[in-house]
Amino acid sequence: MSDPFDLLITGGRIVTPAGVVAGDLAVRGENIAAIGTQLGPAKTTMNAAGKYVMPGGIDPHAHIEQMSGMGVMNADTFETATRSAALGGTTSVISFAAQAKGERLAQTVADYSARAERGAMIDYAFHMTVTDTVVPDFADDLAALVSGGNRSIKVFTTYNIQLSDAQILSVMTQARAHGALVCVHAETDAIIAQAKSALIAAGKTAPHFHAASHPRMAEIEAVERICRFAEYLGQPVMLFHISTTEGAAAVSSARARGAPVWAETCPHYLFMTEDILRQPGLEGGKWMCSPPQRQVADQEALWSALLEGDLQIVSSDHAPYRFDESGKLSAGPDAGFHEIANGLPGLETRLPLMFDAMVSQGRGGPAAFARLTATAAAEIYGLPQKGALAVGMHADITLWDPEKTVTYGANDLHDNVGYNPWVGRTVTGWPTDVWLRGKRIVTDGALTTTPGTGRKIDRPTLAVTPTAPQS
Amino acid sequence: MSDPFDLLITGGRIVTPAGVVAGDLAVRGENIAAIGTQLGPAKTTMNAAGKYVMPGGIDPHAHIEQMSGMGVMNADTFETATRSAALGGTTSVISFAAQAKGERLAQTVADYSARAERGAMIDYAFHMTVTDTVVPDFADDLAALVSGGNRSIKVFTTYNIQLSDAQILSVMTQARAHGALVCVHAETDAIIAQAKSALIAAGKTAPHFHAASHPRMAEIEAVERICRFAEYLGQPVMLFHISTTEGAAAVSSARARGAPVWAETCPHYLFMTEDILRQPGLEGGKWMCSPPQRQVADQEALWSALLEGDLQIVSSDHAPYRFDESGKLSAGPDAGFHEIANGLPGLETRLPLMFDAMVSQGRGGPAAFARLTATAAAEIYGLPQKGALAVGMHADITLWDPEKTVTYGANDLHDNVGYNPWVGRTVTGWPTDVWLRGKRIVTDGALTTTPGTGRKIDRPTLAVTPTAPQS
Amino acid sequence: MSDPFDLLITGGRIVTPAGVVAGDLAVRGENIAAIGTQLGPAKTTMNAAGKYVMPGGIDPHAHIEQMSGMGVMNADTFETATRSAALGGTTSVISFAAQAKGERLAQTVADYSARAERGAMIDYAFHMTVTDTVVPDFADDLAALVSGGNRSIKVFTTYNIQLSDAQILSVMTQARAHGALVCVHAETDAIIAQAKSALIAAGKTAPHFHAASHPRMAEIEAVERICRFAEYLGQPVMLFHISTTEGAAAVSSARARGAPVWAETCPHYLFMTEDILRQPGLEGGKWMCSPPQRQVADQEALWSALLEGDLQIVSSDHAPYRFDESGKLSAGPDAGFHEIANGLPGLETRLPLMFDAMVSQGRGGPAAFARLTATAAAEIYGLPQKGALAVGMHADITLWDPEKTVTYGANDLHDNVGYNPWVGRTVTGWPTDVWLRGKRIVTDGALTTTPGTGRKIDRPTLAVTPTAPQS
Amino acid sequence: MSDPFDLLITGGRIVTPAGVVAGDLAVRGENIAAIGTQLGPAKTTMNAAGKYVMPGGIDPHAHIEQMSGMGVMNADTFETATRSAALGGTTSVISFAAQAKGERLAQTVADYSARAERGAMIDYAFHMTVTDTVVPDFADDLAALVSGGNRSIKVFTTYNIQLSDAQILSVMTQARAHGALVCVHAETDAIIAQAKSALIAAGKTAPHFHAASHPRMAEIEAVERICRFAEYLGQPVMLFHISTTEGAAAVSSARARGAPVWAETCPHYLFMTEDILRQPGLEGGKWMCSPPQRQVADQEALWSALLEGDLQIVSSDHAPYRFDESGKLSAGPDAGFHEIANGLPGLETRLPLMFDAMVSQGRGGPAAFARLTATAAAEIYGLPQKGALAVGMHADITLWDPEKTVTYGANDLHDNVGYNPWVGRTVTGWPTDVWLRGKRIVTDGALTTTPGTGRKIDRPTLAVTPTAPQS
Repeated sequence: MSDPFDLLITGGRIVTPAGVVAGDLAVRGENIAAIGTQLGPAKTTMNAAGKYVMPGGIDPHAHIEQMSGMGVMNADTFETATRSAALGGTTSVISFAAQAKGERLAQTVADYSARAERGAMIDYAFHMTVTDTVVPDFADDLAALVSGGNRSIKVFTTYNIQLSDAQILSVMTQARAHGALVCVHAETDAIIAQAKSALIAAGKTAPHFHAASHPRMAEIEAVERICRFAEYLGQPVMLFHISTTEGAAAVSSARARGAPVWAETCPHYLFMTEDILRQPGLEGGKWMCSPPQRQVADQEALWSALLEGDLQIVSSDHAPYRFDESGKLSAGPDAGFHEIANGLPGLETRLPLMFDAMVSQGRGGPAAFARLTATAAAEIYGLPQKGALAVGMHADITLWDPEKTVTYGANDLHDNVGYNPWVGRTVTGWPTDVWLRGKRIVTDGALTTTPGTGRKIDRPTLAVTPTAPQS
Repeated sequence: MSDPFDLLITGGRIVTPAGVVAGDLAVRGENIAAIGTQLGPAKTTMNAAGKYVMPGGIDPHAHIEQMSGMGVMNADTFETATRSAALGGTTSVISFAAQAKGERLAQTVADYSARAERGAMIDYAFHMTVTDTVVPDFADDLAALVSGGNRSIKVFTTYNIQLSDAQILSVMTQARAHGALVCVHAETDAIIAQAKSALIAAGKTAPHFHAASHPRMAEIEAVERICRFAEYLGQPVMLFHISTTEGAAAVSSARARGAPVWAETCPHYLFMTEDILRQPGLEGGKWMCSPPQRQVADQEALWSALLEGDLQIVSSDHAPYRFDESGKLSAGPDAGFHEIANGLPGLETRLPLMFDAMVSQGRGGPAAFARLTATAAAEIYGLPQKGALAVGMHADITLWDPEKTVTYGANDLHDNVGYNPWVGRTVTGWPTDVWLRGKRIVTDGALTTTPGTGRKIDRPTLAVTPTAPQS
Repeated sequence: MSDPFDLLITGGRIVTPAGVVAGDLAVRGENIAAIGTQLGPAKTTMNAAGKYVMPGGIDPHAHIEQMSGMGVMNADTFETATRSAALGGTTSVISFAAQAKGERLAQTVADYSARAERGAMIDYAFHMTVTDTVVPDFADDLAALVSGGNRSIKVFTTYNIQLSDAQILSVMTQARAHGALVCVHAETDAIIAQAKSALIAAGKTAPHFHAASHPRMAEIEAVERICRFAEYLGQPVMLFHISTTEGAAAVSSARARGAPVWAETCPHYLFMTEDILRQPGLEGGKWMCSPPQRQVADQEALWSALLEGDLQIVSSDHAPYRFDESGKLSAGPDAGFHEIANGLPGLETRLPLMFDAMVSQGRGGPAAFARLTATAAAEIYGLPQKGALAVGMHADITLWDPEKTVTYGANDLHDNVGYNPWVGRTVTGWPTDVWLRGKRIVTDGALTTTPGTGRKIDRPTLAVTPTAPQS
Repeated sequence: MSDPFDLLITGGRIVTPAGVVAGDLAVRGENIAAIGTQLGPAKTTMNAAGKYVMPGGIDPHAHIEQMSGMGVMNADTFETATRSAALGGTTSVISFAAQAKGERLAQTVADYSARAERGAMIDYAFHMTVTDTVVPDFADDLAALVSGGNRSIKVFTTYNIQLSDAQILSVMTQARAHGALVCVHAETDAIIAQAKSALIAAGKTAPHFHAASHPRMAEIEAVERICRFAEYLGQPVMLFHISTTEGAAAVSSARARGAPVWAETCPHYLFMTEDILRQPGLEGGKWMCSPPQRQVADQEALWSALLEGDLQIVSSDHAPYRFDESGKLSAGPDAGFHEIANGLPGLETRLPLMFDAMVSQGRGGPAAFARLTATAAAEIYGLPQKGALAVGMHADITLWDPEKTVTYGANDLHDNVGYNPWVGRTVTGWPTDVWLRGKRIVTDGALTTTPGTGRKIDRPTLAVTPTAPQS
């Protein structure tokens, strides 16, 4: 005779990697103890009839308590960001420990860890953004940090924090030695710089010219280049925020020839086009991000790539800047597109937007939704016990009411950004209740937890294969 | 407080579509009731510590109680065949209801159903082999039989039971109207006939010339043709027993352009080459099958196609002829390759061979093993509640001892064929215990059931889409 | 000091395979003696200032003095057909020696040769259309005829004169042994038969339903199949009258993998779409041919394939049936599309249509025009001294006035068909003067030769390679 | 009655773009006046019976009177280099006007022009090597020089003269504005730098480690990148010295998607492998060049690419450094591979090596030989009246004796390099007589001209299309 369960969620449609099970999900302590029918007894029971029982969302790409590349203040703390995430059905986030130039990497991670420990309401991990490889003890710090559970690194091929090809190869080589994944913002800086200069010289500085300043070819060429580096070194790479048909095709080609590459896209590439930047005055700046939104045909190509497995993840790329002088408008009311910080908030809206499209409207269905928004991220980024409803996993669970319909308002998000880029959009399906490791953090749509509940996720390193680079 | 479970298999490595769970699997009645840890209580408990708990195998391609194309007696009854299958870890089989020329299709299915009902020890279904489309009531019978749960049809492009292109298109069109899958033995008859004639004319009739009599191009061209027919009509097709690199590539290309096609291969293409036909005298005839075994490079290509999803299933193509005058040697001791029945037994060996390669040797791992040998067949052929360990599914379960090593002997199979084509081969991993819908039919390697235990599987028809053929 | 030339064509734009030379072309006897500047002296001089000096056209696909597959009388004799061809700038034609079922092949070729010898005004050769392979002495006749200069064979995969796959493989194998090219009308009969029956059953018998009765897939599948046969046997094949994007792509793929295949298309696929079949009553029957005209996108794909070399030749497929009871209307005024003979006249219009498009409108230019309408045919079909303006070649020359514009009238062609399918179309560029082996057969647009001027072209056999079919 | 010709080459096999003509070639002044039979009369007659009459070779890639990237003295003057070229059958060369850093481009071209005018015995043109874009009047100089007949630019992606991506895009954009082709040495510097450092750190500095210091991936990635830049800007690009299978495939893919790119390879990639670098001591340094020789499989891929048109040209990349302290051994007897100048002489051997392979051994035949070694270069680089034997072209002619067999000796070349990298190799086929614009510069294997005979070739600019870069 076994002990009673701590929690029993009964009668729901439990979305497991094996398919949707109509039955009960049982929790003991922090973990899922059983999935079955007529389970019991339990100390607490939650009736999930008519609801979807989903793995808590994992958002592996968010910028929290971080300075922008332009020196603009990021509006969110870990408290505000993870509060927003939790209310959107997300239970784990990977943010950035972004190295300031000149700063020791160990210091960077220590600082961000302290901030997260204080504020986080959901579990978290860090990508270490490397912007300077000549700081003291760089190699030793990197090795120790990867071994210490931080096994992903972020680099840029563009912006003022870009690394050169040689630096990227060096970072990838070190990552390979220690077992870390390398994530890349891949756009060819020279193409962007040329296009941007030409636009500015022509006086074309309204926000919607931001799209033309990031030609599709910048993404295409850089994605191909980074995939070749990954193939050459045998080093796993994640290509961030793919926005174009050709970028997705480049990833697919590289994977077909055996390159160890993965890629993600974001809701704003799936549901918006660059037309959204065409607004009066600087208003379009609210939607400026890099790469920019593209065309309807790109949306279709990205959906196909997601559903066929060529892209694996949908993240938010949450980049929170207020639309005022503290944020996007820091350069004043006459700013050009090149003076407006890039990014838009997304932690809270990512899952409802994807649920609406994939489950309510049927593009892929509930199992694919769980895979793209949680399971794949746990696998690729190495988050133990996260990302799926199965026995032995963390009881990170989101209950979705598939009947509830919400139309987003102008400022109804719980981050600190002050505007909702999806205002006016109606979604069907809503995350009503959320558990983090068995603890209920959202109850009937209201927050029921406090800062500090979140725990840092200790990630095992990648297996290091002895294969040398190809000669 | 819930009722006790009927059966609890504890402490095993449960291979679910979600991954391998270390825990307990509980059964109530015929179904899986729960997967979890510390489950209970239960009326019966089975300790599975150190074992793999796998879905019972599904073999969707076997010839039982059927005459060969050459009029040679098939050695197995449903009793001997399914006994053999069960001892090899298989709990469901799809055999053929093979129409004799001139015979009404309803009669064919009725006859085979009666034989199976009498003898089967595992669950079963039928592909209806169509060899004559001008018998009375053909169209009506076909419609009724598909609706009645027999939703797959088999046709040949070669042998004396081949259908013409026009007949195949007609059968596919009718299948489409009623919601049936069409399975095809696809080799170009004209290519085989030409090659065979030339070999016989040259006096090259030893068994090993069988390989040359089935040129690779026969498979390639016919697979491409059938894929085009499938694409043209929008009619789902399964390509049976792909043996060549190019045949697999043709399936992959067709799938990439959206043709509704699937394909399988068999262990004798994965583990043997045509060299096995080179034996003294007629001995090589034991291994003769169509298409023939190929080259090592083809084995590699087939493995890649399986693991990448271009091929989906590994079946046995069990075709049981004794190696004596009642079977393969019916034409006497001076027979040429063209007078020896094609086929070899495989129901009992399929799973141990694949487990050894995929789990013990690691080519794909346990989850892929379950998919290729059970899950995919259940999905593609429409077998409700079959093929996976998940709550609500039939408790069709095989327990595998990963430590047990067996070397096959000359005649240690439990079918009625009288030889083991894998004699001398050693496999690691063995199915020790098997449950069919919760009833234990193999206990510690010994049969513990009787003829008639198996039940016919009622298969729902395919969704019929209204799309017309392309113009 | 050399002898004077017989003819000097001065000051023209001479279109040679090396490019366009501004200069003189000199003839001695039947051959081109020199190309240069300031050549001379000559017995006769023709001033070609402002004109294009082109190789005489070669039309390798025309039906002359032949019965249709439906038993309808072909309207042309060699006299009327070659008169028409000459006035259209063509100096060589390959017609068909079409075997009647039961007829010895030697008889077929003898009969057609006699007819051609009597009537032809331009040089000619034959494709031997094989419809019956069981006539007496078939193999010996075939061998002797190929050796005797008739080194191309035509077979059909459809119509009542179709050969089976086995027969086609047999003919290809014999062709390979003797060094002949095999030309194929490749459409899958089963697909056409099914589509045609369905249309007739639905009462859809107006001429424009002819297009739907030949689904694109019929061409695609048959082209792929024949290319595979060519690849398998290593036997050169010409695919006739490609009409679809996918058919052209299938040829291109086969060539890329090394299959010895070539292909052609015709002006009615480049300049017409199936919409032309939509006319009142039976009028659309004038444009009925097989395969039918297709879509605008196919026209573009065929042009690309021609200019990139995936297709090599533009022929006329001249198939002359009068639009009266002796021809297309033999089944009376209520005929369905399946009772109207397929084909339209084209010997006279092929070159002006192509010159207008390629030279006057610039799609490819004069060198590509010469290649597609003359040079490639001479190379692929083995016509010695034909197809190009170069020293040592036959002086088969057409002078084109690039300024002359003509609008086709209803019955202004010089064949015996009685209608012009291009009525109302305006072309720029006109063949004013034509020489056949140095003899002027068209002078300022008027015929200046007589029946019997044409000579049979003795074609050397293909090199026979010893490579066996692949196993 | 026309004037007598100045020169008549009679009875040879004249290799024209139209095929091989058996006949006479007549010259008036500097140009070819006629090709024909029984031509005459002429002031001078040369009997070419049994010989091939070929267009004079064009070598579009040679380094003459230029400093190496390592500051090592180039051994040749225009006199020694073009003397060597002429004796090898070459009548035109494109060398480099290589900008020193800080130098005005106009000065660079003026200096090289003066040197060439003084010494050249064959016609010549320049690629302008751009190494510094911030010198005074760069943009104006570039525009004027391109308009003034120098319409090709060379840039490097590696070495100490490399340009950044941004500089390359800028140069390509300017080239596009003025109608110049951009030639690129494309190897990824970061990959080479990393590999080189690792080798040096490991003490692997013998000459044969040079190959490992230039990984294949360096070529692959850089070729893909430059092809993308060409596609993005719509700017024609020539990829120099492709050495790998994958590099050739990258060019082919780019061409298939419409990118305006061309590519060449060199004899040392077609006939040598990296094994040649394995010699005692520093001896291997004689064959060091960049990219290095590769594998046998690469040779085959390069041949296929040449014969299928994916690569278009075979150049020498003549880079003349003596194997002594003035040249390759400037760093002394203990030099590492990274201290030895890269390059080997090739102006004189390029054509005999290619003739031997293509004509004598039959790989492609005489027409393909003429195309790869002369015709294509004239077309792609815009050399008026060069590269083919046709009426109106310059009488740049090389007579080849196909029977003459020569085994190369250690120092039998007529440049100033002092060693022959092909020593010991036997070639069949030899250039015995050479005419430059009608003047005989090599007579029966001996030089019969003087420095200054060569003339600068005035090249028209490329058509400039108004298409903007893609957005």
